[in-house]
Amino acid sequence: MGRVRVEERLDQAMHVFWERGYWDTSLDQLIDRTGLHRAEVYGKFGSKRGLFQAALRRYREKVIAVFLEPLDGPDAALADITRFFAGIHCAAVEPERRLGCLMISTASEVSPHVPSVARIVSNYLDELRALLRRACVNARKRRELPSSIDVDQVADYLVGSVLGLWVLARSPAPDTVLRHYVEAVLASLHRWDPKRGDLRLGDRAPGKRRGAHR
Amino acid sequence: MGRVRVEERLDQAMHVFWERGYWDTSLDQLIDRTGLHRAEVYGKFGSKRGLFQAALRRYREKVIAVFLEPLDGPDAALADITRFFAGIHCAAVEPERRLGCLMISTASEVSPHVPSVARIVSNYLDELRALLRRACVNARKRRELPSSIDVDQVADYLVGSVLGLWVLARSPAPDTVLRHYVEAVLASLHRWDPKRGDLRLGDRAPGKRRGAHR
Repeated sequence: MGRVRVEERLDQAMHVFWERGYWDTSLDQLIDRTGLHRAEVYGKFGSKRGLFQAALRRYREKVIAVFLEPLDGPDAALADITRFFAGIHCAAVEPERRLGCLMISTASEVSPHVPSVARIVSNYLDELRALLRRACVNARKRRELPSSIDVDQVADYLVGSVLGLWVLARSPAPDTVLRHYVEAVLASLHRWDPKRGDLRLGDRAPGKRRGAHR
Repeated sequence: MGRVRVEERLDQAMHVFWERGYWDTSLDQLIDRTGLHRAEVYGKFGSKRGLFQAALRRYREKVIAVFLEPLDGPDAALADITRFFAGIHCAAVEPERRLGCLMISTASEVSPHVPSVARIVSNYLDELRALLRRACVNARKRRELPSSIDVDQVADYLVGSVLGLWVLARSPAPDTVLRHYVEAVLASLHRWDPKRGDLRLGDRAPGKRRGAHR
């Protein structure tokens, strides 16, 4: 099987997994929709899981790479974070994209049970976090964000917000919810105020610890 | 089969689905782990899907009801939204709860393909949104939030944030990310400023429309 043909088949497999998830996709469906032969799946990828992992890596290289482009440059700052979120919002509300993000769906569906898949997801979350953190550091340097912000907290918040957006996309929530959500995330970033960001959560259940929340 | 025994079995089924999701759970596993007989599954619930829907409704009544308690009263306001998020954060970082929320996992895993399940999820999202919106209206009335806030936008933002938190919980992201995320969501709610909340996303791709973002 030539390299081009393998890549085409892998793209098709990626789309099947993106649409249906990992567990709901049978090897028969993959064979039917990609034109791969059973022997090729086993020979090239070892198993359905091997094919899934290859498709997930391809998704990272092909689909996610386009979303991350605004954050790629070493000088990316506040406007680039805005561009990044505007870009994923735009993609998320396209009717065919109400399918969400294969990587984020996988984070919830597969990674609790399959360590080799959890590693791919975990690497991506680390990468995403590092890109967002760098952009926050640059924004702080340029005084687009207050000098006293905790860039780790902001980066973690933004990573969680990316997950929230993609799960909203796949959920039955209407498009307005997605737009309001992203607008609010960006507005909250633009008005980040460390003086009022000192709300800290305790380790125990709410109500058991006085003064833990304000 | 007595009512108590059915409820116990349904609880066990709920836990199996919560842990493994819908597609990765076979009827054999359900029978094995709940003690239900195959004939009972078909007789009482019609199918694996029927059992799943019953388990999802039970999850709403039993597990989610506890989380929603702070928002239940007609006077719930800002402190109750904080209590609600602190409560789900607390549950989300318990080791066994790094399994996330069955309803939110289902929103991503099952609802794109099974309309009857999408309806249950959609009803829950509407309910959650209505509770959060009412608390925002009360908070605005009490001047805990500025009088000019758009309560629909804030409620949608908070719904998305609940989804984000539960998907983070099920993902391989470390606990710190969850804590930072919830703290930032609450801080952004406490410093909500409609004067700086006028960031609006365009309908087109970023970069194609001048002045759409700021």
